[in-house]
Amino acid sequence: MSSSVSPLAPKTVPDMPTIAGIRLATAEAGIRYKNRTDVLLAVMDKGTAVAGVFTKSKCPSAPVEWCRAKLKGGKARALVVNSGNANAFTGKTGRTSTALTAKIAAKAVGCSEGEIFLASTGVIGEPLDATKFDGVLGRLAEAAEPGDYLAAAKAIMTTDTFPKVATATVKLGKAKVTINGMAKGAGMIAPDMATMLSFIFTDAPIAPAALQALLKSGVEDTFNAVTIDGDTSTSDTLLAFATGAAAGHGAPKISRASDPRLKAFVKAFNQVLANLSEQVARDGEGARKLVEITVEGAKTKASARKIAMSIANSPLVKTAIAGEDANWGRVVMAVGKAGEPADRDKLSISFNGIRVAKSGARDPDYDEAQVSEAMKAPEIAIKVSLGLGKGRDRVLTCDLTKEYVAINGDYRS
Amino acid sequence: MSSSVSPLAPKTVPDMPTIAGIRLATAEAGIRYKNRTDVLLAVMDKGTAVAGVFTKSKCPSAPVEWCRAKLKGGKARALVVNSGNANAFTGKTGRTSTALTAKIAAKAVGCSEGEIFLASTGVIGEPLDATKFDGVLGRLAEAAEPGDYLAAAKAIMTTDTFPKVATATVKLGKAKVTINGMAKGAGMIAPDMATMLSFIFTDAPIAPAALQALLKSGVEDTFNAVTIDGDTSTSDTLLAFATGAAAGHGAPKISRASDPRLKAFVKAFNQVLANLSEQVARDGEGARKLVEITVEGAKTKASARKIAMSIANSPLVKTAIAGEDANWGRVVMAVGKAGEPADRDKLSISFNGIRVAKSGARDPDYDEAQVSEAMKAPEIAIKVSLGLGKGRDRVLTCDLTKEYVAINGDYRS
Repeated sequence: MSSSVSPLAPKTVPDMPTIAGIRLATAEAGIRYKNRTDVLLAVMDKGTAVAGVFTKSKCPSAPVEWCRAKLKGGKARALVVNSGNANAFTGKTGRTSTALTAKIAAKAVGCSEGEIFLASTGVIGEPLDATKFDGVLGRLAEAAEPGDYLAAAKAIMTTDTFPKVATATVKLGKAKVTINGMAKGAGMIAPDMATMLSFIFTDAPIAPAALQALLKSGVEDTFNAVTIDGDTSTSDTLLAFATGAAAGHGAPKISRASDPRLKAFVKAFNQVLANLSEQVARDGEGARKLVEITVEGAKTKASARKIAMSIANSPLVKTAIAGEDANWGRVVMAVGKAGEPADRDKLSISFNGIRVAKSGARDPDYDEAQVSEAMKAPEIAIKVSLGLGKGRDRVLTCDLTKEYVAINGDYRS
Repeated sequence: MSSSVSPLAPKTVPDMPTIAGIRLATAEAGIRYKNRTDVLLAVMDKGTAVAGVFTKSKCPSAPVEWCRAKLKGGKARALVVNSGNANAFTGKTGRTSTALTAKIAAKAVGCSEGEIFLASTGVIGEPLDATKFDGVLGRLAEAAEPGDYLAAAKAIMTTDTFPKVATATVKLGKAKVTINGMAKGAGMIAPDMATMLSFIFTDAPIAPAALQALLKSGVEDTFNAVTIDGDTSTSDTLLAFATGAAAGHGAPKISRASDPRLKAFVKAFNQVLANLSEQVARDGEGARKLVEITVEGAKTKASARKIAMSIANSPLVKTAIAGEDANWGRVVMAVGKAGEPADRDKLSISFNGIRVAKSGARDPDYDEAQVSEAMKAPEIAIKVSLGLGKGRDRVLTCDLTKEYVAINGDYRS
């Protein structure tokens, strides 16, 4: 863990309400860290629906493989998350370890192993000794209470400098339902100690298939639109749990994602995802600037996304922002290398609302002093207009600082 | 320019022979720098064949567009290169500027504008005042001598810390022919001041189409297999010029790249390209380690290339090497995110010949102290065995240091 909190951390932390059907507990299992919590157990009531999206890595971690397989059942009774060890690239012992963890958790909670979901974050390639969970999970299952979501978010941190939580309440039918979420990030994603994990909990009665559809759609413009360093973890995991407890006070049971009664819920759900994913960008390793990149006038939204990601992942763009330099030449470079349709002579670029380039050349009205002043802000918005079509997209990233190099160059040794 | 020479610079600089039919001259035109040369004129004898390959950027610089158009003629009489200003993203004035430069050069040399080739490197987005070449190019054309290739290589430097030249002599038929090359690099490619430019000169009598085929094939495993930061310039240019003067002492005239008499020449030509491109990697911005990444056992060579590039461009792998950390977990991450076929449980990874991971887990015999010692070397070889097929490829890169961030974060301001 870094010693100082990111200057981009949210100024306030929301009060997290409880969610009927969800109980939480954390413990110090001593997996790697000393004097801090490193295990989270979330216990769900019977009937809780689960959905998940995972890393696209061809070398996923053992817990990712476990969750993917168990998602087919659609039901969850417990989530076990540990920090300190990612149980990734651990060969057959990794699979043995997830199976043993699930067995211990199933016994502790009183359910089948297929209803246990697992996530691990921390060092890669070190065997995870699942026997450390023996006893611990039993005590946690007894101690679990409706809860302290902030404590839960703290237990899953690695190089994060602040815990990430978000909440929303919204009407489903005539009933109030609640959505709570937590995430961890730091690199996007430094595989050593900074896997992206996020967990969403709601009391809304939503069937697994519908929840999966909501999650898959919601992640596209939130977590999938955030990049710290372009390095995709072997362990990225986003799970959503819907206990259905709100059916008890009149919330309609939802079986299809297209149900019109879901409209407000979907909006709130996506806001929670957007809030958490922005917090991940705000806590990028070494980040001193939050950077929003908007590409408009592309041929399609997909083309706009690819160009925006090319800009967001460019080391030269990111170092320029760290140096408070509105270096639009590097933005042009990143547009050009994306391989998507672009016409140099139609390009316009602005930094924090100040246009620095238009029609493929420097904007003659652009005032260097004014732009330099604007670049000192902690939040930088880069807008690129391609002038070709109606495709538009937006991604979030952070700057690339010497601290990123220090964190990742000095880390393991 | 950086003040100190890269510790990875070659220990010796070759004596560069002259090439019949090529004359060189350099000057201080004051385009941006003070007290250093910034213009190179190479004058070629009539009948010189030309070939070229360029950036794949969708936003190429004006000189790249000029050269692409003029290549169709296949003949060159002069090459004009300036440093300090890339004439990129300069809109219509960029085109006017290249046209005027070519006009001035054609007058100075006494040829048509279609036989003039241009390359510019330096700041993006600043109009290039071509009138600065007026007078200068006339004087250079008069002063041009068979020459000083090292002086020429110095005139085209930007953030490079050393001039890059290479030479080879080889038999073509029974005649000796010579191949000289020069390059500049630094970022791969920092568009501000570090476009990759390279120029190859030979007296071999090779027709334009054959020369183009040689160049296109030769670049694949040399310049295209080098990455500093994954940021492709708007201006990357590699031109080859063949004067044909060796025909005067018996070299056979070659019209097809498949001509069997070319075999030794192709080998020497590719060695010059490999030598220059390695020097570009050795002079990566802030580089302290030269890194060779070999991927074997992939499904195909193309798949091996994509995985090798994913490793070579990963900020987390590059910062780990800067920290002298054999962090194979990050190599796994980069293999996984490449999107190419890979089986986690068949992966083996070694650093400088020491296997650290096999069959998808830590090598039980691996000795951390031994690996840590090996990582102190200035040259690091990472080998990844996928165990899937016979596809193999190799790329070169360098580490990512705080100096890279400093150079690119502090640069323009």
